[in-house]
Amino acid sequence: MKCILEKAFVNSHRSTELINITNQIRQIVQKSGVKSGILNIFTQHVTTALTINEDDPKLEEDIARFMMNAVPEDDSYAHHHFFRKDGRMAVNAYSHIRASLLGANLTIPLQGGEMVLGGRQNLYLVELDGPQLRGLAVQIIGE
Amino acid sequence: MKCILEKAFVNSHRSTELINITNQIRQIVQKSGVKSGILNIFTQHVTTALTINEDDPKLEEDIARFMMNAVPEDDSYAHHHFFRKDGRMAVNAYSHIRASLLGANLTIPLQGGEMVLGGRQNLYLVELDGPQLRGLAVQIIGE
Amino acid sequence: MKCILEKAFVNSHRSTELINITNQIRQIVQKSGVKSGILNIFTQHVTTALTINEDDPKLEEDIARFMMNAVPEDDSYAHHHFFRKDGRMAVNAYSHIRASLLGANLTIPLQGGEMVLGGRQNLYLVELDGPQLRGLAVQIIGE
Repeated sequence: MKCILEKAFVNSHRSTELINITNQIRQIVQKSGVKSGILNIFTQHVTTALTINEDDPKLEEDIARFMMNAVPEDDSYAHHHFFRKDGRMAVNAYSHIRASLLGANLTIPLQGGEMVLGGRQNLYLVELDGPQLRGLAVQIIGE
Repeated sequence: MKCILEKAFVNSHRSTELINITNQIRQIVQKSGVKSGILNIFTQHVTTALTINEDDPKLEEDIARFMMNAVPEDDSYAHHHFFRKDGRMAVNAYSHIRASLLGANLTIPLQGGEMVLGGRQNLYLVELDGPQLRGLAVQIIGE
Repeated sequence: MKCILEKAFVNSHRSTELINITNQIRQIVQKSGVKSGILNIFTQHVTTALTINEDDPKLEEDIARFMMNAVPEDDSYAHHHFFRKDGRMAVNAYSHIRASLLGANLTIPLQGGEMVLGGRQNLYLVELDGPQLRGLAVQIIGE
């Protein structure tokens, strides 16, 4: 059984946006040569998340806007008063909270060398504090 | 190490409901003969989710109702204005957003041929745009 | 390929809090001797969750407080009227709902005998109905 770990990079262009990474991940799966196994995609950031949804730009906007409304910028966050690591004020507690709500990994079965996605399922990196260059760990275990 | 992929089907009967799939998944685990390994349950739809909670019908109602209130039907969604793939109006952006909040997969350890669930843990398919027939990919890797 | 399952225990001290378990999990990973593989952490309770975020006590408070506000205690929950299993009133529907929103497992790649965490990523048990002693199943599959 093979155990492969690849890094994938994604550039975001807005502060909050869904970026379709389905093709990028599909290419890593195909390159791996693994036919049957498990895929785990893991974002290495605390202000991004991963999710699965339908490839409709309007829906991508709706999801981003929902997260912005559900966890508003202009609330009173303790994180904003003092940021221990850097000795400066942090200003993005809402980005962190949104990330925890959506989750940091997706685990997807592989069969016949492909992800077993439903017809409408696409994979998204959710940028919550962009624009930035983001890194994903893409792990494939199988045969 | 074995790598097994089974399909499970679930019929929903309401637009939004939690459906207990614990026994259905347990039977697939037992049939697999895998004693020690990992189970990944993956829904293949963009308007369903998977979650773990307690087997109380009242709580199932509470979770469904919370999702309906948290992401209301009668908001102004961009997805509703034009739906690229079908050339028609979509009407269920809220179902998609609820699905992203809850997540599309559950990953559970297996030991002694059983899921290592806590005493109150049950597995649920969360229907968010029913009633429909839904399909799950149930993957088991182990020995 | 090894398949190891360890149990980890965490004591919570408040009704709702984030408890940093990064070092505790790291020690289990190191003890396993697995260099390359997959880690799945699974909470065995229906009123706890697992999440990844930054190690800042103020942010831990913000996330806990957000969950308390998003799913308020003083709503009208069906679960509170009758609790089938124990023949008594349940009072913690909000704890269960918060748990479903955050999720019960984290799946993280391992490389070089370490979790491939980003520089700011820490692992948290989210206590949602404490204080209690909580148990986690920590599974490692790899070589």
